Amino acid sequence: MEKMRAARMHDYKQPLVLEEVPVPGPGPTEVLLKVAAVGMCRSDWQLMDGYFKPGVTLTFPYIPGHEIAGHVDRVGADVPQGAGLSEGDLVVVDAGWGDGSCRECHEGNEQLCTGSGGWIGFGPPGGFAEYVTVPYRHLIKVDGDQKPENLAPLTDAGLTPYRGMKKLRAAGKLGSGRTVAVHGIGGLGSYGVQYAKLLGGGATVVALDRSDEKLAVAAEHGADHTINPRDKTLDQVRAELDRLTGRKNIDAILDCAGTESLKLGAALLAPEGGMVSVGLMGTEANFPLFSFVSGERWYSGSFWGNYNDLTEVLALASPGQIHHTVTPIKYEDINEKLEALARGDVVGRQVLVWG
Amino acid sequence: MEKMRAARMHDYKQPLVLEEVPVPGPGPTEVLLKVAAVGMCRSDWQLMDGYFKPGVTLTFPYIPGHEIAGHVDRVGADVPQGAGLSEGDLVVVDAGWGDGSCRECHEGNEQLCTGSGGWIGFGPPGGFAEYVTVPYRHLIKVDGDQKPENLAPLTDAGLTPYRGMKKLRAAGKLGSGRTVAVHGIGGLGSYGVQYAKLLGGGATVVALDRSDEKLAVAAEHGADHTINPRDKTLDQVRAELDRLTGRKNIDAILDCAGTESLKLGAALLAPEGGMVSVGLMGTEANFPLFSFVSGERWYSGSFWGNYNDLTEVLALASPGQIHHTVTPIKYEDINEKLEALARGDVVGRQVLVWG
Amino acid sequence: MEKMRAARMHDYKQPLVLEEVPVPGPGPTEVLLKVAAVGMCRSDWQLMDGYFKPGVTLTFPYIPGHEIAGHVDRVGADVPQGAGLSEGDLVVVDAGWGDGSCRECHEGNEQLCTGSGGWIGFGPPGGFAEYVTVPYRHLIKVDGDQKPENLAPLTDAGLTPYRGMKKLRAAGKLGSGRTVAVHGIGGLGSYGVQYAKLLGGGATVVALDRSDEKLAVAAEHGADHTINPRDKTLDQVRAELDRLTGRKNIDAILDCAGTESLKLGAALLAPEGGMVSVGLMGTEANFPLFSFVSGERWYSGSFWGNYNDLTEVLALASPGQIHHTVTPIKYEDINEKLEALARGDVVGRQVLVWG
Amino acid sequence: MEKMRAARMHDYKQPLVLEEVPVPGPGPTEVLLKVAAVGMCRSDWQLMDGYFKPGVTLTFPYIPGHEIAGHVDRVGADVPQGAGLSEGDLVVVDAGWGDGSCRECHEGNEQLCTGSGGWIGFGPPGGFAEYVTVPYRHLIKVDGDQKPENLAPLTDAGLTPYRGMKKLRAAGKLGSGRTVAVHGIGGLGSYGVQYAKLLGGGATVVALDRSDEKLAVAAEHGADHTINPRDKTLDQVRAELDRLTGRKNIDAILDCAGTESLKLGAALLAPEGGMVSVGLMGTEANFPLFSFVSGERWYSGSFWGNYNDLTEVLALASPGQIHHTVTPIKYEDINEKLEALARGDVVGRQVLVWG
Repeated sequence: MEKMRAARMHDYKQPLVLEEVPVPGPGPTEVLLKVAAVGMCRSDWQLMDGYFKPGVTLTFPYIPGHEIAGHVDRVGADVPQGAGLSEGDLVVVDAGWGDGSCRECHEGNEQLCTGSGGWIGFGPPGGFAEYVTVPYRHLIKVDGDQKPENLAPLTDAGLTPYRGMKKLRAAGKLGSGRTVAVHGIGGLGSYGVQYAKLLGGGATVVALDRSDEKLAVAAEHGADHTINPRDKTLDQVRAELDRLTGRKNIDAILDCAGTESLKLGAALLAPEGGMVSVGLMGTEANFPLFSFVSGERWYSGSFWGNYNDLTEVLALASPGQIHHTVTPIKYEDINEKLEALARGDVVGRQVLVWG
Repeated sequence: MEKMRAARMHDYKQPLVLEEVPVPGPGPTEVLLKVAAVGMCRSDWQLMDGYFKPGVTLTFPYIPGHEIAGHVDRVGADVPQGAGLSEGDLVVVDAGWGDGSCRECHEGNEQLCTGSGGWIGFGPPGGFAEYVTVPYRHLIKVDGDQKPENLAPLTDAGLTPYRGMKKLRAAGKLGSGRTVAVHGIGGLGSYGVQYAKLLGGGATVVALDRSDEKLAVAAEHGADHTINPRDKTLDQVRAELDRLTGRKNIDAILDCAGTESLKLGAALLAPEGGMVSVGLMGTEANFPLFSFVSGERWYSGSFWGNYNDLTEVLALASPGQIHHTVTPIKYEDINEKLEALARGDVVGRQVLVWG
Repeated sequence: MEKMRAARMHDYKQPLVLEEVPVPGPGPTEVLLKVAAVGMCRSDWQLMDGYFKPGVTLTFPYIPGHEIAGHVDRVGADVPQGAGLSEGDLVVVDAGWGDGSCRECHEGNEQLCTGSGGWIGFGPPGGFAEYVTVPYRHLIKVDGDQKPENLAPLTDAGLTPYRGMKKLRAAGKLGSGRTVAVHGIGGLGSYGVQYAKLLGGGATVVALDRSDEKLAVAAEHGADHTINPRDKTLDQVRAELDRLTGRKNIDAILDCAGTESLKLGAALLAPEGGMVSVGLMGTEANFPLFSFVSGERWYSGSFWGNYNDLTEVLALASPGQIHHTVTPIKYEDINEKLEALARGDVVGRQVLVWG
Repeated sequence: MEKMRAARMHDYKQPLVLEEVPVPGPGPTEVLLKVAAVGMCRSDWQLMDGYFKPGVTLTFPYIPGHEIAGHVDRVGADVPQGAGLSEGDLVVVDAGWGDGSCRECHEGNEQLCTGSGGWIGFGPPGGFAEYVTVPYRHLIKVDGDQKPENLAPLTDAGLTPYRGMKKLRAAGKLGSGRTVAVHGIGGLGSYGVQYAKLLGGGATVVALDRSDEKLAVAAEHGADHTINPRDKTLDQVRAELDRLTGRKNIDAILDCAGTESLKLGAALLAPEGGMVSVGLMGTEANFPLFSFVSGERWYSGSFWGNYNDLTEVLALASPGQIHHTVTPIKYEDINEKLEALARGDVVGRQVLVWG
């Protein structure tokens, strides 16, 4: 039996074990991928830390990793010709696998499946390995001239803020004369500011983060202004905002951090303003009641992205409309790099690239 | 100078003083109304208690009262003929008076004015008096055969949940196969359940309240099921919901209470579910972050209603599509009845009716 | 080999041939249904007449019939247990079968598939037969105590106007103080008026048809007013509308007829009004340009319904919130009854019921 | 009495008469403007030609002209201080003046007023004169360093396609992976292509026009591709589209022409596609019924723009996000230039500039 290298969880709150395991065989409607690149997400570390335990059941040993780009290695017997998948094709993995039975799946939102669906890297074995199997329906073929390390993060870090920004746009919160902020410029936020520009319809784009180094990335990627709220009072942040944008509040916020930034965001949100959460630091979202009621403020979660969202992100990436901030890392360094993620020390996205 | 009776605030946290004061004269574009009926709202008590102090500036002595139906007594000199207002006409007061300069006013949402606008009863003198002056643009003429005590509460208690329910409908949260709940069956909630039925598109309507007497009103007004969560665990409430509706969660919630009910509501909200706040009990809205993100749950404030919302409510009321739960009260009893409101002891709406 | 009776097309513009043919065997992911009832739609006659030739390719001999309720007879080898389908189950057929590859399929709108998808009864063999095979994903199980002849038409006649009315609601055209009309009270329109009531949020419901007999059905099913425009000028229709509703125009129109009624509808449409087409009589939709531009009038097609739409219709039907106007017919009379449909002589829906 | 030069209609189908007339005095809530620049619109010529006779009543002699930028000359006695208008201020005119009584006005859509409202230049005297009076509420102050000849056209040519494009965006027709076309690159279309880029969210932008000179303007202003359909069959246009964009159809079309271009547009529109009309050449909009129904295609008029739309356009223009294609013309040449407009010979916008 063929073997492959894989980084596996043997328990919660333990480093991944780098070991040799059998290469899986694809089921009849699956495809075996040779993983080319796999993004490293703060949620991988949260998975290992037990954050998702209430909602996600794992069987140990378990291979995490959900941002996957790779090449088709072997195609299952019942995969239809019409799928157009051949050995060597470069593909990315649509990570939300619904069971097809619920309302959410029938809306195309398989990532929200309320039936028995799941997500690769949070149930089905993920991509921290040399090979992985994927149902053919969840593969999207891409032009071969794009770099796998740029493609991999698009399936979550590049996808999740895109869906979130679309929610702000659909709610009518973006546009000329408005201010849109991206709060938290980590893996997701560095894409988020680009979507603020692309979908903003002329809105002024502000980036907020407690790291100047990350704010510099935001500025490179199109933020009109950056604010570092570290060690500043609310009034100081408002004054800075006013100086930069001519207004003390913000119409639309994409929060890529969590509890603490949501609190600041709520205080900065304009009447009729909207805030969308994609960040998962902390466990609560707390808002002032009278402000939300009297100003008709609005808050929504946004989760990952669906198949069509991902094709839209890829359609932007293909002609180079998306800028990447990617650091390739080596398989051997995976545990060390996950710890950096946990500490918030990572600028842009770390992507494991197979040699 | 003509005199009138009026109940006035001389300070915060004091009972209203019932006294004789001059009848105001209408400005050139105003109308003097003889108040026929004025609803008593928990927010009147909150105003007296100082809850709105951070946002609302009052000049003492001050006449509260914002749910007003009355008859035209005198029309200002510059009110245009086209307004069609004559002495004796029965009218209701559109309570949100914007300054016409901001984006919100130009959207027709004067109740959200971010300029110098205000609300009658929270700045401009209100209706706890025999007469009140109102800019002609904020009067809506109604059929003379409707009872003023039924009309008065429509301008807030009957309007606010209507706008809230429209937000749930606009967000796609209502419809066949869905469950919609109204949480808190006080003055607003007893209208709210009716709108759940009217706008629900076949959704199952559940009323939640800690008073069985109020739930009985909800059932009369069309709630399919009622649940009293008092002294029940979350699991018990879920089990009761399941038994009644076949599901353990709810797709859409109109919250007419506040901090505590929002907490329960958030725990009952289905994936993709939405919750709208119109109630102002307490000061915070706290939600579980992962649940809101992963299930794309959604929360919005909704504030009072605009002119068009009010005409829609009146269009429902005129042919009797709205049921009222109104208790007429006497001017002399106003302080006693406000205290009952503060305690949460009032079923339906108390309305001061002038003899 | 087992035989069954089937009514088949051998060419365009020919009556169906009633003959004995082999019972089909279900493929591995298919289910063999014993057809209990199959609705007869004007589009069946149009298919035979060649109306759809430009878009739909048939292989003769061909079995039409797309409104199908039946009982599970045999389940294919690879149908998953989770589908919950057993012999004898009463099911209806979701008729739009997408190929799963296009944006429309990934939105859940398989009936709009722009890939290689199709519709049962317009490509894959339909239900004018004793048995039919259906992919398990397109079956929806229903309570056994509902009559198959009532269920069958819900999959098109009861579904199509539902989706159309949802489009009017989503566009903000329905609500209190508005007028909504259903134009053409045939198979679809007799359901349409019910949805106007259910989704209208208090709107006044008007039915328009050139047959008083059909208007009587509309009145029974909840239309507030009915108008027969036959032999009337536009001004006479407007005057009648004014007398009945207090207004000379209409805010929202669901057109269940076609070219001629769209013309009248466009002339009756209010500023900001919207009209949705589901009827296919004639080949053109013609509107006055200045009126549409200056009044921001709006027109949209709406096609059949998707899986979620159908579950919503079934959720209404199950507790009896939908009234049926169904005439059971016999297999032997199928050609005669199709001719009646072509002439417009049918009130409600004719449904072939197997003995 | 002070005199001014003015170009006036004395009857339909006659050239404007250039004459001296009294300068009007501002009413109490009006402002007298010294006109700095006034755009010349094809609709001015249509007004003179009688196109709007059915809907618009004029009193002769009449001064047309509705795209106005000017300086405050005198402020009426009752204009509030809060309006912030002083002599010499540079302002533009919001041209849709509603009567404030109807639903449309209460939505902020005064340009759609169904009461007694009107539009400057189509009822109230317009700007083909040295002075004009305007209600203070319909003036918007702008930075003094912008050129009046660039500002004037923003009130219609720059505003109307903006609102139309917003309708396409609100309907979900724009975005990455989609194609959006602007059809007709005259005064409106040359702004339209810019909005396609700004609001398109990454969509591919195609310009269609029968003049290569106008297409060159579109390309300068950001169109990704241009197509001249003159003397081409539908199949040839589709093939050209396919060659340029990789697809034979278009998801969203802003039609700035009329009957003929709508016909071609309808044939190019993709399933689920939407087309918005702002152009008024011709009198009809004709669509293929089956295509619109089966593909859920969609058509809407869009009319001018409201106050908020105009502030958004100005917010784009102020920092130079809008490019102008303006030809200043002299008062003396006004009739000659209107004839050029009628012939379709004008590239960009002609603007009358007072010396």
